[in-house]
Amino acid sequence: MRDTAKPPDPASLVENLRLELRRGCLVLAVLAQLRSEHYGYTLRRTLEDAGLPVDEGTLYPLLRRLESQGLLASEWREQDNRNKRFYRLSTNGRTVLKQLATEWDGINASLAGML
Amino acid sequence: MRDTAKPPDPASLVENLRLELRRGCLVLAVLAQLRSEHYGYTLRRTLEDAGLPVDEGTLYPLLRRLESQGLLASEWREQDNRNKRFYRLSTNGRTVLKQLATEWDGINASLAGML
Repeated sequence: MRDTAKPPDPASLVENLRLELRRGCLVLAVLAQLRSEHYGYTLRRTLEDAGLPVDEGTLYPLLRRLESQGLLASEWREQDNRNKRFYRLSTNGRTVLKQLATEWDGINASLAGML
Repeated sequence: MRDTAKPPDPASLVENLRLELRRGCLVLAVLAQLRSEHYGYTLRRTLEDAGLPVDEGTLYPLLRRLESQGLLASEWREQDNRNKRFYRLSTNGRTVLKQLATEWDGINASLAGML
């Protein structure tokens, strides 16, 4: 059986696959963390502390998308003399989080069986 | 705190988020299943049996992509009077599978802590 030519940079290939794997899980992680209210910076910190670091360029557009989809609610508020946008799960987001968590359990059981 | 307007079709929103969650895991599942040789149809069946159904329009382009990235090797062979393209993990794919499986364990531990 023929092995195709290896890509020029295997390290960046693995890195891309890693990111792809994380990306799908990120929505779930963000919804889970926003059961408590956070603004961008503290949300990033809790995600990083939980082992899922994510850069601003990924997280902030995702927050806006999830809000436009009705899963998050946000509010501008002053804290420490600065205006910050605080996010938390909407009622609808809470329902979706439950459904996605169930889906996650299923995927997880499937993958555990394969690996 | 203001709840933004709900999207017109919550069912399709959840369905899209589900697909997004699966998509990232699909590469890992495909690599894991191709430790044994399969052609498209039997691969789809093993994935479905394992609880991860995927349609042809998603799976076949993914197989070609993973081969072009050097993670899979393929071979055309006749079986039951039909030419079929058989895929399996390349040496490189085997290494990447191990790395992604480790990444998966990490993500999983993170999410388990959050959910």
